[in-house]
Amino acid sequence: MFENKGKTELSELGEFGLIEHLTRQVEIVQESTIKGVGDDAAVLDFSDKQTLVSTDILLENVHFDLRYSPLKHLGYKAVQVNLSDIYAMNGQPSQITVALGISSKFPLEAIEEIYEGIHIACKKYKVDLVGGDTSSSAQGLVISVTSIGYVDPEKVVYRSGAKEGDLLCVSGDLGGAYTGLQLLEREKQIFLENPQIQPDLEGKDYIVERQLKPEARKDIIELLQKLELLPTAMIDVSDGLASEIFHICKSSNVGCRIYEDKIPIDPMTYDTSREFGLDPTICALNGGEDYELLFTIPQSQYDKIKTVLADVSIIGHITEKKSGIDMVSKSGNIHPLKAQGWSAFKKYEESNSNDSAEKK
Amino acid sequence: MFENKGKTELSELGEFGLIEHLTRQVEIVQESTIKGVGDDAAVLDFSDKQTLVSTDILLENVHFDLRYSPLKHLGYKAVQVNLSDIYAMNGQPSQITVALGISSKFPLEAIEEIYEGIHIACKKYKVDLVGGDTSSSAQGLVISVTSIGYVDPEKVVYRSGAKEGDLLCVSGDLGGAYTGLQLLEREKQIFLENPQIQPDLEGKDYIVERQLKPEARKDIIELLQKLELLPTAMIDVSDGLASEIFHICKSSNVGCRIYEDKIPIDPMTYDTSREFGLDPTICALNGGEDYELLFTIPQSQYDKIKTVLADVSIIGHITEKKSGIDMVSKSGNIHPLKAQGWSAFKKYEESNSNDSAEKK
Repeated sequence: MFENKGKTELSELGEFGLIEHLTRQVEIVQESTIKGVGDDAAVLDFSDKQTLVSTDILLENVHFDLRYSPLKHLGYKAVQVNLSDIYAMNGQPSQITVALGISSKFPLEAIEEIYEGIHIACKKYKVDLVGGDTSSSAQGLVISVTSIGYVDPEKVVYRSGAKEGDLLCVSGDLGGAYTGLQLLEREKQIFLENPQIQPDLEGKDYIVERQLKPEARKDIIELLQKLELLPTAMIDVSDGLASEIFHICKSSNVGCRIYEDKIPIDPMTYDTSREFGLDPTICALNGGEDYELLFTIPQSQYDKIKTVLADVSIIGHITEKKSGIDMVSKSGNIHPLKAQGWSAFKKYEESNSNDSAEKK
Repeated sequence: MFENKGKTELSELGEFGLIEHLTRQVEIVQESTIKGVGDDAAVLDFSDKQTLVSTDILLENVHFDLRYSPLKHLGYKAVQVNLSDIYAMNGQPSQITVALGISSKFPLEAIEEIYEGIHIACKKYKVDLVGGDTSSSAQGLVISVTSIGYVDPEKVVYRSGAKEGDLLCVSGDLGGAYTGLQLLEREKQIFLENPQIQPDLEGKDYIVERQLKPEARKDIIELLQKLELLPTAMIDVSDGLASEIFHICKSSNVGCRIYEDKIPIDPMTYDTSREFGLDPTICALNGGEDYELLFTIPQSQYDKIKTVLADVSIIGHITEKKSGIDMVSKSGNIHPLKAQGWSAFKKYEESNSNDSAEKK
C-alpha cells in the first residue's frame, strides 16, 4: 500500500530543479540519441532505419489504484506498456519521453519512486529517457509515456499481413494480469473495511506481478530473430486476446479459428480465477494487460516454431474472412468470439455467465 | 463558456470505435509517414535527417479552465504548444501523437470538438496525426501531445550555442497570453457571481487569442531560412522571457544583458496589464505561454536581421558568464533578472511590487 515516506515539498525545487533532479542519473546508451533531456526537443538519428512511435496514457483510478500499486512498479509498468507496442512492430525501442501530472500534495520522494521505476525499466531494456514534461495536477496522477524505436524497413511487422492458413501464436500465458487485479481488489476491500488486516497475497506472487509489474517481450523478438522467423502479422495483448485477434483479422481482412484448450493459462491464474467464480478462458480472452505478443506465421514455418513451444503456443489458424472469428470450446462447440476492448469489464459478467451456462 | 451540446454516450462507440471515429478524417500529408494510426506504433522514415521528439501535457484546472477554454481551441493549443518546441530546434514538425484522458461524462460531441481543433492545427501546419491513446479519466481532462519532426543535422539549433557578443532576439510580442488570462479569469469570477452577466471581452480579441489559441512560429523559422540566418541558440517562450533567457545562458555558459525598453509588448497587452495594476514588463518576463522564439545570432549577422525588425526585436546581447544576467530598466537602473518557471505566478506578486517600487 502507498505510504507517504518523505516530505520534500515540490515547490522547494521548482519545475526546472525537479526535472534536473529526476533525470540527473540518466545515462545515454543508444547510439541514435544525439541529444536527450535538456533542450526543447530530443534529437535522434536513425539513419537507414524506420522510426517507430507509440504513446500510452495511464490515469489514476482508471488504470491503477495507488492503494495497491507501488509507485516504483507504476513507473516501471508505464514504460513496459509502451515498449510492448514497439516490440509488436518487430522493432527495438530506443528512447522514451515521459509526461507526468502529479498532485502538488505528493512529496518529492513519491515522484522519485515513480522515476526510479522508470529508470530501472530504461536500464534493463537499454532505452534512453530523452525528454518529458512534469506538471502539477489538480486531480489524480497521470503518466503518459511515448516510446520511440527503430526497425529495419524489411522487417517491420504490421497487423495487416495475416494470410489464410497462417498459424496463430501467442507468447507466454494469458489472463494472469486480470486475475491478479481481482486479488488486489479483494484485498483492498478487506483492508478498507478493516485496516488492521494485512493483505494476504501469499503464494500469489506470479499473478500479482503480472498485474503490477509486467514485462514487455523483448526476449520473444530476439527469439524470432534467432529463428529467422518473420511473423506475417503481430500485435501485443493489452486489451485481451479476443480484442487483439479482432484487430489482426480486421486489418488483414481474414477470419480466424482458435481452440480453447490451446490458450495458455498458468495454473495459478486458473485456480485463482476459479476461486473468484470466473472462467479462466474468459479472463484470458477479455482480461487484458498481459503484454504478450500475438502473431501469425506461415504454416511452412512450423518446424521453426515447434522448437520453442515452451515460450510460444500455437492457438489456432487464420481462415478466410467469411468463415468469421470463432473459438472451438473444450467441449467441441463453436462460439463466435466477441471483441470487448474498453467495456470489457462491464460486459464481462454477462459473457462469463453465458459462457459458463453453455459449458456446464 | 463550455456547454454540453451533444449527448452521444461514449460507451455506445467503445474504445476502438471511438479512435476510428476521431481519426477517420486524417489524411497523411508527410512523405515520412509510412504508417499512421491503426497499428501498435506509427512507422516513420526520416532517411538522412535527424529526428526531433517533444512531449507536453495539459491538465484541466492547471493549464486550462473549461469554463472559458472552448474545447476546439484547447485541441488546437495542445498541438501548437508542441510544434513550438520542434521549431525551437530549427526543425520541421511532421507528426504528432495524442494521448487523451476524458471523463466518461463527456459526450462524444465534446471529444469531437477537441479533435476538430487538433485536426485544424495539423492541417494548417502540415503535420500528420499518427497515433495516440484515448482513455476515460476518473478526474479531469488530460491532453498529452508528442510531436515528432526532422532537421538537417547541420541546421539543428540547441540552447547551448550562444557566444559572447551575440545579439539576443525575440519574435512577435510578449506578455499577451498572460494578460489575456487575467481578463478571462476576471470575467469568470463575474460570471460565477452573477451568471446573468455575459463576459465582456470586446476589443480584447488579440490578447484573448494569445491565451486561448496561440500560434507556433513556423513563419519565423521560414524567415530565418530565407535570410540564410542560422541562430547560435534558440528556445521557445513558454514559461516567460526571463526563464528562457536563463535556460540559454545556463546551457551556453554565458551571461546576458537585456534592455527593458526593447522588450516587445503590444499596446493592448500594455494597457490591459495596467488596468489590472500589473507591470507590463513583468507580464512579459514571467507571464509565459507566448510561444514566441527567443534566439541569438552573431553580431556579424545584424545586416540580415535588421531587414525583419517588424517580426523580430533585438532585446539585448550575450555577455561573459561572470557578468551575470541583467536587465537595464527604462530609467537606466541595472536589475539582475530572476528565473521563475513553475512558481512564476506565486512569486509574481512579490517581484511585481518590488519592481514597481523601484521604478517610481
